[in-house]
Amino acid sequence: MIRVVLQSSVDMELYLIRHGLAGQHGDYPDDDQRPLTPEGERKTEQVAKRMRSLDLKFDLILTSPLTRAKQTAKILQKAGLSDALETAGYLAPGGDIQNWHAWVESWRSPDKALALVGHEPDLSSWAELLIWGEVRDRFILKKAGVIGLELPESGSALSNSQLFWLTPPRLFL
Amino acid sequence: MIRVVLQSSVDMELYLIRHGLAGQHGDYPDDDQRPLTPEGERKTEQVAKRMRSLDLKFDLILTSPLTRAKQTAKILQKAGLSDALETAGYLAPGGDIQNWHAWVESWRSPDKALALVGHEPDLSSWAELLIWGEVRDRFILKKAGVIGLELPESGSALSNSQLFWLTPPRLFL
Repeated sequence: MIRVVLQSSVDMELYLIRHGLAGQHGDYPDDDQRPLTPEGERKTEQVAKRMRSLDLKFDLILTSPLTRAKQTAKILQKAGLSDALETAGYLAPGGDIQNWHAWVESWRSPDKALALVGHEPDLSSWAELLIWGEVRDRFILKKAGVIGLELPESGSALSNSQLFWLTPPRLFL
Repeated sequence: MIRVVLQSSVDMELYLIRHGLAGQHGDYPDDDQRPLTPEGERKTEQVAKRMRSLDLKFDLILTSPLTRAKQTAKILQKAGLSDALETAGYLAPGGDIQNWHAWVESWRSPDKALALVGHEPDLSSWAELLIWGEVRDRFILKKAGVIGLELPESGSALSNSQLFWLTPPRLFL
């Protein structure tokens, strides 16, 4: 696969993408099924389109099983950002990064790019664990916002990753 | 002054902006006078224009005294991002954040926005000190890249700030 990387390095890139604007909490009997609003869909489409225009392409998108995340992931896929999309239970709210970490250690290779679609505060916490090894709530990740991390070429991704991108969706609209 | 903030909060915003692409190190007898290349000027102008189109406005731009930083700061000012531009010696390479911190504690107020134009690895280190209180080289800040921090409403900015923005210039081109 041809992939034009945003960084000159060939270290694996990880994108943490928060789901788009969804309906009000409490308006749905099952919060897991709360969908994106029309505005949330539109803005997420714009973000996806802009990311694709940067020649970004993921080898795989993993998404939380919740409706608002799956819808977001499908919008990313439809924009041409990835051919592969899978659901991962550990991306649901409160999921344990160790479950993902165990998987990614066998999946990762330097030239790959992976996107995770999920929720706050989990995604910011995961980013902090990957960068710093501890959570201090120091990142502000808006809905449809994106965090870009470069994983180290070798060794554990936890505590050893670098941040090259954190954007509110507004920068793409 | 009317300012449309990127964040809904009214906490003070701090933007750390790295100078644009400059001539080769060693090509100038005095490295402090190394200027931006034509490409560096063009890209920095594009970044500045895009930032201005986001309704961003700084109450003040402080710049390193080095030529490549001052040129970058002037491009930001010319794009309408600030009416005020001053040179600050502590923004030169190796400058001490404590000098800036002593000044900003009296200058800051919740509704203000400040931009610092300087160099790497200093800007990334300052960001880490503001967010985490220690330097671990975990941020990748490209030339003409931008870091956006939200300072806490009260208390020291050091170790207590939050990151809402980190972009390579490519996202704006």
